[in-house]
Amino acid sequence: MFLGRVVGQVWATRKSADLEGKRLLLVRPLESYEEGDPVGPVVAVDPVGADVGERVVVAFGKAARVACGGDGDFAFEAAIVGIVDDVDATGAPADWSEVG
Amino acid sequence: MFLGRVVGQVWATRKSADLEGKRLLLVRPLESYEEGDPVGPVVAVDPVGADVGERVVVAFGKAARVACGGDGDFAFEAAIVGIVDDVDATGAPADWSEVG
Amino acid sequence: MFLGRVVGQVWATRKSADLEGKRLLLVRPLESYEEGDPVGPVVAVDPVGADVGERVVVAFGKAARVACGGDGDFAFEAAIVGIVDDVDATGAPADWSEVG
Amino acid sequence: MFLGRVVGQVWATRKSADLEGKRLLLVRPLESYEEGDPVGPVVAVDPVGADVGERVVVAFGKAARVACGGDGDFAFEAAIVGIVDDVDATGAPADWSEVG
Amino acid sequence: MFLGRVVGQVWATRKSADLEGKRLLLVRPLESYEEGDPVGPVVAVDPVGADVGERVVVAFGKAARVACGGDGDFAFEAAIVGIVDDVDATGAPADWSEVG
Repeated sequence: MFLGRVVGQVWATRKSADLEGKRLLLVRPLESYEEGDPVGPVVAVDPVGADVGERVVVAFGKAARVACGGDGDFAFEAAIVGIVDDVDATGAPADWSEVG
Repeated sequence: MFLGRVVGQVWATRKSADLEGKRLLLVRPLESYEEGDPVGPVVAVDPVGADVGERVVVAFGKAARVACGGDGDFAFEAAIVGIVDDVDATGAPADWSEVG
Repeated sequence: MFLGRVVGQVWATRKSADLEGKRLLLVRPLESYEEGDPVGPVVAVDPVGADVGERVVVAFGKAARVACGGDGDFAFEAAIVGIVDDVDATGAPADWSEVG
Repeated sequence: MFLGRVVGQVWATRKSADLEGKRLLLVRPLESYEEGDPVGPVVAVDPVGADVGERVVVAFGKAARVACGGDGDFAFEAAIVGIVDDVDATGAPADWSEVG
Repeated sequence: MFLGRVVGQVWATRKSADLEGKRLLLVRPLESYEEGDPVGPVVAVDPVGADVGERVVVAFGKAARVACGGDGDFAFEAAIVGIVDDVDATGAPADWSEVG
């Protein structure tokens, strides 16, 4: 799982049936301790109800499908599993503490 | 899942039986917020019907197989699960908004 | 699995039910042999009981869920599976030997 | 799945029983559109019969095991699932078009 | 799977029960063709019996668990599945040929 921030949303009319009615959020990983190459945003479904700007925990694979209440047979593999209230990490970049 | 753009197609005569009759599209991840190292294109099957130039959401692993209507026992692990109509992400690179 | 150091903790009130009562630790991969791009921290559940500063082994996917005693159907995919007492790796960065 | 080129072979006498009798090919991902950091080669089994120099599509995880005709319980997780005849991708690096 | 070299070992007293009695080796991926960012070492269990300095093939996920003779329900996801006798890859870095 990684710590990210919701930066936007994606809309798709033509899509797998399993994505019908699901919000597709764009989640950008929080920056690393040191400067470095950026990691591209992830497209995640959102069973928790996050808003743009919020920090979230994203899970991949079967965990993402389990988080959506199914038996694991869904056509997606990334989901928000927690909305972050607080991060305590000494020396972390300031961005981590921005509530958004 | 990631947000990408269909940049081309691959043809293979000798291949796993599960790939028979399936279009193999090349999908290039949209660029990151900051400049950075490029990520190579992904080869994905396409149960949704995307065209070259379109922006798509790609899913990996079992999700890709579920998107193709099977029981998860296919010899591929990447599939287009949505064709993007619109992206709303403040500050995102211009490339994200190009409809293609 | 990777070798990392616990650098902090994340709190989330709104989250998947499977994360209730679980500590969400931030684990930063130990630096590579050569200098290089940083890898962002991972959010992992902790069935072993690690403290901030300790070196740990983190497992992903089903292994993480098995480590938590379940049948593999949990909404997370990273867990601490060992707390490191000692590392023996000739030429490794000094950071690897700091007990923390 | 990714697009790569077979660059060599690996021999191992002491190995998991599931690898007995299987060719272990080294597949190097084709270069990205822009220059960037190299991605290391992947070790893949080859149920399709590729030659060194050929361009191939490689699948990971369960897909790789399914491609080898099994029930998914093999001790490997990368396999060649297609030998590429042709790639059509506007603006792609010249390397992609070399038949090898 | 990737090609790496065993660079050391990790000891952990407090760990998941599935790791009891298992050697935890540190495996560093062999360098890429071109210079580039280093990839951190992987922590892998070793059902094959590799020594420090040897070149090995490492598998991830279920493949790693299958290599250890189980039903796939182990709390680890990386294992050595082969000890490399020889690598034949034209133009590969010299490091690949060092027997170690």
